[in-house]
Amino acid sequence: MAHSGEFGLINKLTSSLIKSKYVIVGVGDDCAVIKSSGSRYILATVDAQVMGVHFLPGTPPERIGRKAAAVSISDIAAMGGTPKHCLVSLFLPKNISDAYVEDVYRGITRECKTYSVGIVGGNITRAPQFAIDIALLGEASPKNILLRSGAEAGDKVLVTGSLGNAAAGLRLLQAPRAAISGAIRDFLVAKQTSPTPRISESAAIACARKATSMIDISDGLAQDMLHIAEQSKVGVILHEKRFPISRELKVFCKSMRKNPSVFALAGGEDYELLFTVPPERADSLASRIKRKTGTEVTEIGEITKKEKGNWLILNNGRKMRLKPSGWDHLKI
Amino acid sequence: MAHSGEFGLINKLTSSLIKSKYVIVGVGDDCAVIKSSGSRYILATVDAQVMGVHFLPGTPPERIGRKAAAVSISDIAAMGGTPKHCLVSLFLPKNISDAYVEDVYRGITRECKTYSVGIVGGNITRAPQFAIDIALLGEASPKNILLRSGAEAGDKVLVTGSLGNAAAGLRLLQAPRAAISGAIRDFLVAKQTSPTPRISESAAIACARKATSMIDISDGLAQDMLHIAEQSKVGVILHEKRFPISRELKVFCKSMRKNPSVFALAGGEDYELLFTVPPERADSLASRIKRKTGTEVTEIGEITKKEKGNWLILNNGRKMRLKPSGWDHLKI
Repeated sequence: MAHSGEFGLINKLTSSLIKSKYVIVGVGDDCAVIKSSGSRYILATVDAQVMGVHFLPGTPPERIGRKAAAVSISDIAAMGGTPKHCLVSLFLPKNISDAYVEDVYRGITRECKTYSVGIVGGNITRAPQFAIDIALLGEASPKNILLRSGAEAGDKVLVTGSLGNAAAGLRLLQAPRAAISGAIRDFLVAKQTSPTPRISESAAIACARKATSMIDISDGLAQDMLHIAEQSKVGVILHEKRFPISRELKVFCKSMRKNPSVFALAGGEDYELLFTVPPERADSLASRIKRKTGTEVTEIGEITKKEKGNWLILNNGRKMRLKPSGWDHLKI
Repeated sequence: MAHSGEFGLINKLTSSLIKSKYVIVGVGDDCAVIKSSGSRYILATVDAQVMGVHFLPGTPPERIGRKAAAVSISDIAAMGGTPKHCLVSLFLPKNISDAYVEDVYRGITRECKTYSVGIVGGNITRAPQFAIDIALLGEASPKNILLRSGAEAGDKVLVTGSLGNAAAGLRLLQAPRAAISGAIRDFLVAKQTSPTPRISESAAIACARKATSMIDISDGLAQDMLHIAEQSKVGVILHEKRFPISRELKVFCKSMRKNPSVFALAGGEDYELLFTVPPERADSLASRIKRKTGTEVTEIGEITKKEKGNWLILNNGRKMRLKPSGWDHLKI
């Protein structure tokens, strides 16, 4: 694509970008040129947000931008890395205004700035639907990298923060007349539209070198736990009664006659960190994270041998197979 | 997005990928993990191809994939670098078949293999229109990198291959009944649907360390020449009579009563390399490229001081301002 407006818009969007000392060439040439810091490994990830799929048309554009950056930054957090540079690919329908795109881009820029990420390049193309695709580069010391594949039988399963809030927020956006009061609604909707990538928590976990595997919860606890189980070739037991559920989600669920565990298991988009730790180190790591970041960490289960399978122990003591989806029928 | 089909499709697409020794973790975790090769700089670029914008619905899916990879690889060529690793982001409408997506992905994989590029990650999302966004990482020795900003007054302007073929190919795809015979049509359409990134030519240019600036021609000679002029803060004179026009484009233009220069100036998507060289080194560099790669190189103009402006000397001896677009009225 090359229309006369493209380069003008690129100039408007990128004029205030700041280049770090590791960026030799930023936006404006055929490629960005980056100096790598030698002994560290490069992390690379890409994530897209599409209008109508990942966000509703009425979402404030700056929030759309912030979230698009946040979900990629969360992928770097999930590996124990430091996010560094990103490329922003924009898909713009004909009727979109420059002002709207500038607001989205400001959101991306601000979220990136919060985590010291520089925008080093990108692309603009026409498309029927507005979308943002962000490719993010990060770095990590080889010994600090946490994969999905390192969990071992006996490890404890830990999770940061609380689960299910983002999915409840999405329900509220879809049903704006639900009888949920201001503060509760604001909290849950903010968890949906403005997720916080757990970069400091990730750094605390990675630097301690005690965890054996890690993932960020984007698809829901059940699905993402099964990613770790599958890639680590282990089984898992989760305990419903230990799920960290916020006061706000409890109020929401009571009012809506829903089971908070369903939101935790299948909701997705919480962007909390799910990780495994040898049992004798679990408590000290959880305390360390709380001390360093203020974020609560909860032990919600344990890793078993693969042949034991994947299980959820319900509040009533019954066992259910842990499956990626289909939790809607779980009784309150 | 997380539907049950997503992970199955990802497995199908990525099961045969090969990992280079610099890739510690490829597809399947939150990020790819790459070992950088120390003293070289990292190049990073992203480019999108959208159904209906960059390719027509009837285009064979494997060609769509090849071209999506080729245009990003061409951006690395434009800097004098070596392409290394890519992340493939797919936007899939509901009605698209797995078989179609697999064909596209096979095209991406094959094009990448041709240039020793490994696919290290990606993303799949629902979207109303099919699109591919490829983020590509490459490497270059710091001294070999060629920016758009290094041209100096007195330099000669050189270009690889011939210009305007891809745009003529697009016209033929849009007007399939045009009275252009088989071989000519096939040549021009192939230039449109199957561009060749000039990686070996780029290596020959970069290693010689004689060129002062470079860009790949994606938007047309006029627009891309002006990118170099603007970023190098220089003026330029191009000579229409020296434009390298293929025999096939000449036949096409004669039959269609068009001026081949319009296709060269404004057509775009040729992905040839446009570069500048100090005058005393231009001939030897052109010969070297021809000797090493078999590709013709043509001197089409010279760089001047900025205050002289940007000009095109027409075949009839008249001067016209070189402008980014609006060449359609240029007489045959």
